[in-house]
Amino acid sequence: MRHNYLSNTPLNEARPLFLKAAEEAGFTAQTELIPTGCAAGRITANAVYAAISAPHYNASAMDGIAVKAADTFGASENAPALLKKDSYVTVDTGDPLPEGTDAVIMIEDVREQADESVKILSAVAPWQNVRQVGEDLCMGDMIAPAGTRITPALAGAFLAGGVQRIPVKKRPVFGIIPTGDEIVPPTAEPKRGEIIEFNSTIFSAMLAEWGAESRIFDIVKDDKALIADAVEKAAATCDAIMVLAGSSAGRDDYTAAICAALGQVLLHGVSVKPGKPVVLGIAMDKPLIGLPGYPVSAMVIMEEFVKPLCDLYYRRSSAESENVEATLTKKVTSSLKYEEFVRVTLGTVGDTCYAVPLPRGAGVITSVTKAGGILRVPQNLEGYEAGEKVEVRLLRPKKEIENTLVITGSHDPLIDEIADIVNRSSLGFTVISSHVGSMGALRAVSAGQAHMGACHLLDEATGEYNTSYVYKYFPNGGATLKKGVGRVQGLMVQKGNPLGIGAIGDLTRCRYVNRQRGAGTRVLFDYLLKQNGLAPTDINGYGNEKFTHTAVAATVAAGNADAGMGILSAARIYGLDFIPLYHEEYDFLVSDAYTDDPKVKAFFGILESADFRRRLEDMGGYSVNERN
Amino acid sequence: MRHNYLSNTPLNEARPLFLKAAEEAGFTAQTELIPTGCAAGRITANAVYAAISAPHYNASAMDGIAVKAADTFGASENAPALLKKDSYVTVDTGDPLPEGTDAVIMIEDVREQADESVKILSAVAPWQNVRQVGEDLCMGDMIAPAGTRITPALAGAFLAGGVQRIPVKKRPVFGIIPTGDEIVPPTAEPKRGEIIEFNSTIFSAMLAEWGAESRIFDIVKDDKALIADAVEKAAATCDAIMVLAGSSAGRDDYTAAICAALGQVLLHGVSVKPGKPVVLGIAMDKPLIGLPGYPVSAMVIMEEFVKPLCDLYYRRSSAESENVEATLTKKVTSSLKYEEFVRVTLGTVGDTCYAVPLPRGAGVITSVTKAGGILRVPQNLEGYEAGEKVEVRLLRPKKEIENTLVITGSHDPLIDEIADIVNRSSLGFTVISSHVGSMGALRAVSAGQAHMGACHLLDEATGEYNTSYVYKYFPNGGATLKKGVGRVQGLMVQKGNPLGIGAIGDLTRCRYVNRQRGAGTRVLFDYLLKQNGLAPTDINGYGNEKFTHTAVAATVAAGNADAGMGILSAARIYGLDFIPLYHEEYDFLVSDAYTDDPKVKAFFGILESADFRRRLEDMGGYSVNERN
Repeated sequence: MRHNYLSNTPLNEARPLFLKAAEEAGFTAQTELIPTGCAAGRITANAVYAAISAPHYNASAMDGIAVKAADTFGASENAPALLKKDSYVTVDTGDPLPEGTDAVIMIEDVREQADESVKILSAVAPWQNVRQVGEDLCMGDMIAPAGTRITPALAGAFLAGGVQRIPVKKRPVFGIIPTGDEIVPPTAEPKRGEIIEFNSTIFSAMLAEWGAESRIFDIVKDDKALIADAVEKAAATCDAIMVLAGSSAGRDDYTAAICAALGQVLLHGVSVKPGKPVVLGIAMDKPLIGLPGYPVSAMVIMEEFVKPLCDLYYRRSSAESENVEATLTKKVTSSLKYEEFVRVTLGTVGDTCYAVPLPRGAGVITSVTKAGGILRVPQNLEGYEAGEKVEVRLLRPKKEIENTLVITGSHDPLIDEIADIVNRSSLGFTVISSHVGSMGALRAVSAGQAHMGACHLLDEATGEYNTSYVYKYFPNGGATLKKGVGRVQGLMVQKGNPLGIGAIGDLTRCRYVNRQRGAGTRVLFDYLLKQNGLAPTDINGYGNEKFTHTAVAATVAAGNADAGMGILSAARIYGLDFIPLYHEEYDFLVSDAYTDDPKVKAFFGILESADFRRRLEDMGGYSVNERN
Repeated sequence: MRHNYLSNTPLNEARPLFLKAAEEAGFTAQTELIPTGCAAGRITANAVYAAISAPHYNASAMDGIAVKAADTFGASENAPALLKKDSYVTVDTGDPLPEGTDAVIMIEDVREQADESVKILSAVAPWQNVRQVGEDLCMGDMIAPAGTRITPALAGAFLAGGVQRIPVKKRPVFGIIPTGDEIVPPTAEPKRGEIIEFNSTIFSAMLAEWGAESRIFDIVKDDKALIADAVEKAAATCDAIMVLAGSSAGRDDYTAAICAALGQVLLHGVSVKPGKPVVLGIAMDKPLIGLPGYPVSAMVIMEEFVKPLCDLYYRRSSAESENVEATLTKKVTSSLKYEEFVRVTLGTVGDTCYAVPLPRGAGVITSVTKAGGILRVPQNLEGYEAGEKVEVRLLRPKKEIENTLVITGSHDPLIDEIADIVNRSSLGFTVISSHVGSMGALRAVSAGQAHMGACHLLDEATGEYNTSYVYKYFPNGGATLKKGVGRVQGLMVQKGNPLGIGAIGDLTRCRYVNRQRGAGTRVLFDYLLKQNGLAPTDINGYGNEKFTHTAVAATVAAGNADAGMGILSAARIYGLDFIPLYHEEYDFLVSDAYTDDPKVKAFFGILESADFRRRLEDMGGYSVNERN
């Protein structure tokens, strides 16, 4: 039997089960004494009391002369008092009050006389202008109770109270064990079949954010004995163990068996997606989490189990997640079998925050890095409709989400370059772009879901770009087409063009890779096919769809296809030959509601900038002479 | 002339002046390349592009067999297809797709046959169950633009894209130079006249929170040449310079002159309180901030000048401060000459957040550590009235402020012990106590500003504690007195009782230290005076008021007074002799609105707990047999 079955336990059952077992296994903060100088940010484990008073002596609170207050009684501007040389002492701020004195007169009120006596213009009360012992802190006072986050000021107060070492909650140490025959440490030149191990980097950074440390072990091959050995080592030296990959029930999945042998498997499989194949257990009295190998699945498990585990350790209530109400631009379907976590981009247009669902593949780490938030679809829901208002957990600061220029539509790397220039210019906003094809640009702008769109749509009837589409989509106006750039579309083929592809007709004898429906490049390709008297069925690979120019180029470069249509810059990056076919116009459609928006204006300012033009030149295949 | 005059420039003029000069002097982020593994939390300095695609080869997306999709066309459960031994290859998730195959059939759909051929129950399309090259990231794609905060996931995406070193904004390094003849490094046993240098610890922790590093230089004596030398060294190796103390215009204040000699003083003195005596300038092309020596003053300058300087460096917009609307419990007066920053405790009672102003001394660091927020009084305002609603900048998480048990009134260290037990028990709330004396407890509870109060008020007429006061303050009910603890009040005198003090009458021949008006101890003292036929004027030091038992004990221990009244535990801490005078009842007054509040209930639960009773015993002088 190669496959066991996983359980499908809901989060709200699985989590308490795991946390209770961890607590019973003694997973809670120990105390360590650390130098006060490095205690900021840590949590006190015990109450901290002042060991000395602050000030610990009577100190002059200003520059002046220390006196016996009684000697000054009655002095005033009209009746100054004279103090002889031996009845006062000159002091600076912080100086100890000399024996026999009990007040300080500030230097501005003192008139020095020739014989070293001084004239004073006002009386002082006992202890006036004196920082008496304990003014700030008295020995024995509790400076902070247990469980207090040590702020910079608190670290200072501890030192002022003579406390040089602070009992703090020891950070839990998570042993991270990456496993897998195909896994290699980060490299810029992985061999075929080698997968770069980056999960441990992600998880140790997440743990650091939650106040935990991590010890990353060497990568272990898919060998049960070796992995068991690593788990034992981790359990002996760490507070908790995370085994990366091998958490499912396949041939090479050993985590569950190892955990069972060293303790107890509490659960194998939870009803979340992504993240289902997880092992939760106790091994050698330490909590063990067997994480799925796919990064996005594993990050869900980190958030849903490991973060609460850290909260349990510190006995702190979990930080409330910051949420935002957003309107979905697209339907999200979900299985009733799972609670789903869907990454979405978030951008604010007008008063509405729009959420655009991102690819849901568990291996697509960029779906997390591009996301502005996470949409949770409860298990008992089949999903959400387009246009529905949903609650999204923020992954970025709310302020950033509120200050976005939302550009939807056709993919061109130049949008990323503009986003980079925007960030460098500290304009106070960021660019959010969704690659939904040129037709998507029209839809999004017309629906008010984007400030502007990017499109290159050829009118087959007239051979003109974009204008007729805009007329059709906006018969009563509402959006304005602004000239963007000219660019050359062509066929990307293997270096040296081994198949001798020279024109559309040649594509019938090779494997093609296409763009997705709605993409301007797809519209152009369909037009060229028709012009050449060809049908989609004549093209092998017509149904193999990619979403970006670089994805097409990568597919050709990898040998998965012989030709694909795209822009010169993509072909260049991959060292592909390029057969130019068509000069097209890549333009911007701006909603009339936002033509005066400072973000939109800044965008077009950048489009005209020398920096941007230089970048276009470097990428190649663009022309900018058609600006209006 | 010993004193120059400081300017009184408002913040909103001073800040832009300083920042502009810093910018012109080139104070902006440089770029450094760091390993991706430690890049989380940093800010990208340039756009980062994928160096390789991810996956960088066609990988099986599941465990199964790799096939040529065309070989499977037509297969179904009813009409399974048979694949011979050499027309499929067994693969695991992540394995590279073998040459000549373009799809994977999951293992569950495969039936192994005796002759090593397999039966398959469904067809697959080309690239089905395959993670094609670039599915996640395509070589050349921009993974993140400049100015992006590197999240854990982003660090992972960089590694997935083969990027092993990331260009990030170098952290600015602030050279911190503590100065002063009396300043010594942190110690538990400072000598008389030595002041512990803790400001550099506070400031370097603040800088760390703002993304800056610090280099703390050795303490420099008040010597112009030595300080100038240190400033030159700091300017040569750091990005900005902070000189601690010496920023005013006194005899030993050299910062301004040194800054002028090495560059330019932009401003000397701003109209904020605390924080006025500040030097802002450029020395050797580096921003120089001369900070006042008093920690609270200096922290205001840090917040108002150094934090914006860090924001300028990173070209980031300043984080919005989180504010809360609070009701002032006490009048705050302020000079029209200054913009004032007043520390307040914040506690939520019912639906209202109350702000209690804390001591305003510039040297009282505990006023910052106890504060929940900062109240800003603009320069053109003379202050705020009690009961006025004010906007307070939060120093603690809002959630913490909202979950407070507010206890106002008499000071006894047992309240701090209970706060400690509350924190240790992770009850989800914190205890905020204000020491405003027993009379203050009655006022606060009656005004609804506290959940409960602590008091020990002797009725001179009856000799009874607390009850008659409560009847008077709450003639129509509204609050309930709950028995607290019994404790012994007495006279604290020097060890060995050198003046032979035995009773109240002996106080006429010594220096006394009193408690503040409204304190229960003061009421008791006045009662005992009267009983002994004495008047306040008979007592030398009657007007010398302290706010806590430990402050009285510290005053006696320091020799600033010969006797003071207080509780045994305070005398013990300071090794003082104690002459018991009166057994009193320290009780709690609970607003009827909150008797069922879980926080209040938890409080009284702790009062009964073994842990608490043990602590009382350790402190000494308490009895708990009068609980009702």
